[in-house]
Amino acid sequence: MVNAISAIADDRPGVLRDITKIVAEEKGNINYTQQFILDRGEHKGKAHIYMEIGNTDKIDSIIEKIKADPKVIKADKSPRFNEVYGKRVIIFGGGAQVSEVAKGAISEADRHNIRGEKISVDTLPIVGEKSLAEAVRAVKRLHRAKVLVLAGALLGGEITKAVRELKKEGVWVISLKNVGSAYKQADLVVSDPTLAGVLAVMTISNRAQFDIKEAKGKQL
Amino acid sequence: MVNAISAIADDRPGVLRDITKIVAEEKGNINYTQQFILDRGEHKGKAHIYMEIGNTDKIDSIIEKIKADPKVIKADKSPRFNEVYGKRVIIFGGGAQVSEVAKGAISEADRHNIRGEKISVDTLPIVGEKSLAEAVRAVKRLHRAKVLVLAGALLGGEITKAVRELKKEGVWVISLKNVGSAYKQADLVVSDPTLAGVLAVMTISNRAQFDIKEAKGKQL
Repeated sequence: MVNAISAIADDRPGVLRDITKIVAEEKGNINYTQQFILDRGEHKGKAHIYMEIGNTDKIDSIIEKIKADPKVIKADKSPRFNEVYGKRVIIFGGGAQVSEVAKGAISEADRHNIRGEKISVDTLPIVGEKSLAEAVRAVKRLHRAKVLVLAGALLGGEITKAVRELKKEGVWVISLKNVGSAYKQADLVVSDPTLAGVLAVMTISNRAQFDIKEAKGKQL
Repeated sequence: MVNAISAIADDRPGVLRDITKIVAEEKGNINYTQQFILDRGEHKGKAHIYMEIGNTDKIDSIIEKIKADPKVIKADKSPRFNEVYGKRVIIFGGGAQVSEVAKGAISEADRHNIRGEKISVDTLPIVGEKSLAEAVRAVKRLHRAKVLVLAGALLGGEITKAVRELKKEGVWVISLKNVGSAYKQADLVVSDPTLAGVLAVMTISNRAQFDIKEAKGKQL
């Protein structure tokens, strides 16, 4: 289902406001908006605007009106991020563990996606209490992020606090068994990195039999 | 350097417009904007707004003004995505190859990040000409995406066209040697999945000696 808009426009104030106004006039609900200045490619320096629209069958007339704005260089219909890339498993950690967790998650996501789901696996190999705590805190700002796997050897202090905060935002947290106090905040603790990756995918799959709510507090 | 804003607000028309106006009054340049409706956590149903601001030392007074808007529930300073998650390597493909490429990239990114860089590795295991072509086309809408690795066995047709289009957007493309015509569009063709992942990270690193422009057209 195509119900998103992708546009290139001059980097001038008011572009986003004007497009938002057009969508509102056509009774569209904006569910997701992204705008950034392109730092690459043929439209370098221009603004890239992407919007997901709900509640409207007037996407064609919205596009035509956007194209009529002289600040707009091009505008097209496009599929929604959720249809193209799906839900996201997020993995943070370092060393041997982070790539083993990722491998488990990617292999499992491959099995789900081949049957029609869409699950992505986004990995940031990272070390240091401050960097990791910041990364955990920022997961709440990631669109489509559903589960976080903590794949490091030593995780505590500020990271533990950040995990506690993130859980309030409704993101599931799976942790490897490791040194430090962060894993005690996780919904599920898993010793084997491959299993941790596999269960992260199963947690957010629509098809898997696994229900993390039932496993909650377990240490596998 | 903290120069981004994260806010939670009622999902009502005009929220983004009002915040944009406050930033403009303080002479801030908005480099990145993201807004979505939260589908999880304690602020479910509310709008999450995130903005990266350039050219301003008035971030504190911007935050105070935003907080004064009755539609706004909370607003805070936050670090920029680029500082927290960095540049992105994107990997698409299926089966054994996609996880091997990811493992190579994650291990290499770990080595770079431990020295202070920030490089993420985002993987979508996916099959099918249409799904893969859509995924390739959508890379241009991904903030901070710098290089794409094609990690499948059979890639051609619509995917080949999508790769050609993506290259105009300034995203580097590395492909495994495989069946189909897509790899011929890549900047670099690599037979070994681990090496493909490693070189993807080296392509976008600020520190690596490797320059993909010099390797361009090579088949390793």
